[in-house]
Amino acid sequence: MTTKDGYLWTPDQGLNTGIPCVGAVRPSQNFDGANCPVVDVIVIGAGYCGLTAARDMCLAGLKVLLLEGRDRIGGRSWSSDIGGYPFEMGGTWIYWGQANVWREIMRYQMHDEIEISQDFREGINQYVQASSHKTQRFSHDEESAIMDSGLRKLFNVDGQLGKRVLPFPHSAEFTSEAVALDQMTAADRISDIEDSLTLNERLGIEAWILVCSGGTLETVSFLELLHWWALSGYSYEGCVNHLARYKFKHGQSAFARKFFEEAVATNNLSYAFNSAVSSVDDTGSLVTVKTRDGQRYKAKRIISTVPLNVLSSVTFNPPLSGGRKTAACVGHNNHIVKVHAEVGDRNLRSYTGISYPQNELFVAFGDGKTPAGNTHIVSFGGQHRHFHPEEDIQVTIKALGSLIPMDIKKIVFHNWSKDEFAKGAWFFPGPGLLSKHLADMRSKQRNIYFSNSDWALGWRSFIDGAIEEGTRAALFVRNDLMKSYSNATSV
Amino acid sequence: MTTKDGYLWTPDQGLNTGIPCVGAVRPSQNFDGANCPVVDVIVIGAGYCGLTAARDMCLAGLKVLLLEGRDRIGGRSWSSDIGGYPFEMGGTWIYWGQANVWREIMRYQMHDEIEISQDFREGINQYVQASSHKTQRFSHDEESAIMDSGLRKLFNVDGQLGKRVLPFPHSAEFTSEAVALDQMTAADRISDIEDSLTLNERLGIEAWILVCSGGTLETVSFLELLHWWALSGYSYEGCVNHLARYKFKHGQSAFARKFFEEAVATNNLSYAFNSAVSSVDDTGSLVTVKTRDGQRYKAKRIISTVPLNVLSSVTFNPPLSGGRKTAACVGHNNHIVKVHAEVGDRNLRSYTGISYPQNELFVAFGDGKTPAGNTHIVSFGGQHRHFHPEEDIQVTIKALGSLIPMDIKKIVFHNWSKDEFAKGAWFFPGPGLLSKHLADMRSKQRNIYFSNSDWALGWRSFIDGAIEEGTRAALFVRNDLMKSYSNATSV
Repeated sequence: MTTKDGYLWTPDQGLNTGIPCVGAVRPSQNFDGANCPVVDVIVIGAGYCGLTAARDMCLAGLKVLLLEGRDRIGGRSWSSDIGGYPFEMGGTWIYWGQANVWREIMRYQMHDEIEISQDFREGINQYVQASSHKTQRFSHDEESAIMDSGLRKLFNVDGQLGKRVLPFPHSAEFTSEAVALDQMTAADRISDIEDSLTLNERLGIEAWILVCSGGTLETVSFLELLHWWALSGYSYEGCVNHLARYKFKHGQSAFARKFFEEAVATNNLSYAFNSAVSSVDDTGSLVTVKTRDGQRYKAKRIISTVPLNVLSSVTFNPPLSGGRKTAACVGHNNHIVKVHAEVGDRNLRSYTGISYPQNELFVAFGDGKTPAGNTHIVSFGGQHRHFHPEEDIQVTIKALGSLIPMDIKKIVFHNWSKDEFAKGAWFFPGPGLLSKHLADMRSKQRNIYFSNSDWALGWRSFIDGAIEEGTRAALFVRNDLMKSYSNATSV
Repeated sequence: MTTKDGYLWTPDQGLNTGIPCVGAVRPSQNFDGANCPVVDVIVIGAGYCGLTAARDMCLAGLKVLLLEGRDRIGGRSWSSDIGGYPFEMGGTWIYWGQANVWREIMRYQMHDEIEISQDFREGINQYVQASSHKTQRFSHDEESAIMDSGLRKLFNVDGQLGKRVLPFPHSAEFTSEAVALDQMTAADRISDIEDSLTLNERLGIEAWILVCSGGTLETVSFLELLHWWALSGYSYEGCVNHLARYKFKHGQSAFARKFFEEAVATNNLSYAFNSAVSSVDDTGSLVTVKTRDGQRYKAKRIISTVPLNVLSSVTFNPPLSGGRKTAACVGHNNHIVKVHAEVGDRNLRSYTGISYPQNELFVAFGDGKTPAGNTHIVSFGGQHRHFHPEEDIQVTIKALGSLIPMDIKKIVFHNWSKDEFAKGAWFFPGPGLLSKHLADMRSKQRNIYFSNSDWALGWRSFIDGAIEEGTRAALFVRNDLMKSYSNATSV
């Protein structure tokens, strides 16, 4: 199966779009379009949030229709198996400390299908730090020491490494201290501590902030970085464990399929892919959802999992309420570029590096070994030198080689910024957005539940947050419908 | 509501048994005993494992009968609210890095009902380390440094703090290295490293091992300690976060009730408390469960959540299969004593201490402040000087005072070793048990699914592991019954 999404470049075949994905769904719908019944709930979007919501409601006996603009499940998270190796196009790393995703991994008994991303046992085994004026090589222990020390300085806002000001990172209630930190950008915070930072610490933490946020130092909220730090247990080692250490051996689309197949097996799920929603009309007793191809579907309740940056492209009637509308207009700032390279250099398996700020791809590391015996390098580009990797593949090739010389066999990527159903990568907010509008984004509007990793309480922006939100929405809708059914019966 | 469980002592009232619990269920059954229908599934045991299994199956539309020997939900985990303060009788601490329990906390939107157990802001703010020959006082930073250093030595079996030998702590497959570590006792491991340990480190890690395991150094598996360490992210700080930092503000029985009430609300749950199971007969087309009072109940499938140490007291026909029977005979080794004291000494809020090995209660710390303004001290006793705190309350009072002088207003505890439905506290295995019999304990036997935190893959022995196991059992039974229904339909 292939999806229309994604790009693959090889020296022989050049650049092509549309690559394999086990998350692609054919045929694209499981009912006769003219005869879709009125369902209990329409779920808009088949990312992890929508899949979780649909599955949980199907299991509870509700009739669900899942509408998705793409030809595949997974939303901003999917993997492409090329040459027997899964390239993760968005979302990769998971950890047993991430509650929602790990609960599902255990539930589907996939705990033996996890592997460790980095492998420092052989090869060059170095952290290569290229700044604009010189290149230095460190051991990975030295790299850890630089990052540990740098991040402690970054996050020690209270003499307790953030534990005092953000003791409960899942709380949606912002203390005045938290509001102040949310007004602060990463650049503001660095400016406060710059005298205490070594040059290497500064390079390391700036690159870390940019690869976490996909923004610029001047446009991302410092509080959200602190939120990741707190969720990780207030330590650099915790960050490594949670953010970049463990991944699915066989790619995460195989994981996403588990949710989808479980929902399908209940016989309660109707679905239509290639069915982008154009409008949602909630002015009658039933909500009407219209797709771009003119189909209309009706349901008692809607779960919209449309991401923040895409919300404005769907017409809601009544319109989005104040705070949510503002948040959707402001949007989030993550336009990370993620480029995979399969390279002949086996010794790069143990490479990590930054090339910052001068290079388009500013962070990279060895992330696996392909069946052909090649090394998989994953690299990231940021907004400080933003580029679209498909526009001139020679620029992309040059940016990879500027990290460290490599013998490129294959390049794989998805351009999230140009993706009409994403308009950016994982959620990362600018200053003030969350403390002003998180509650707005999470609120219900009449019969529509808005549910997305972008406004999860815990691992917002992660697969974990998507599942958290899908779980919440499914339970709310189920309780809501049960109440209305029992009221109807008692009348 | 009160339960028959638990003890409360006050200077005025002396020692009494039977204390308040919001998890007590009255009336004890919700159906006419003579007219219980044949159900899809009988769940034996209303701890977190049974509650999760029952809830998930009820949500999926199955008819479930929940049988429980006690008069309350929660099993080995429950809280007693006395004077407006919840005393946790078994199980206390939870963390967002524990996947299954945190997923439920988020699902029930209880993330704002968490508080931090220790509070070092005022009071004596000391770690008081009393060994048999002297008492020393340290700052909590010094305490952390001693424990961090000691535990790193304890767990650094591979030069990588255990990461190489136990990279995936959820795996049920034991490598030969893991089998060897499972043959090793804590005492064996300490003997290997004793030359490298300072005296303070040795005191600290011995007390830590005993409070984690409820056994003796000579009777507990070193691998299981390493398993806790790995789950905690291979660090002392991770251990603190996961094991003793965060707890429910209002006691965990309020959390357990959420599961129970959600199941009840489906109208698919029948239940009978005070209904200890005496036998399970699986020799016909339906399984018959008999309770001690002579009632018989029939179901298509059984989920037995009977703990390992209690399994032998139920008659199974056919009998328990080989490996499970052996494991049940061997049992686990945790006979921890947990004693709460409410004390007038406000300055002990920031106290932590050990009194080891000479005192019956060998670890204690300030764990909260009661509405009366008193300090809550939680203390633990081990097997090296095992005692039953209700047998001579003066011994208990003296053991508390030997930790540090305290003005005792109230003592609260549950004696898990004498509890016929527990026969010990949380699971902690002797050497060899898990590498030989974990798979046996997890296996299905005809129509009976055995499900308990004792043989969870992740946070075995924790609330988290109970939910993990209940989730697994519910999904298996549901899929199993769906298959048999669809076979029946197609025939």
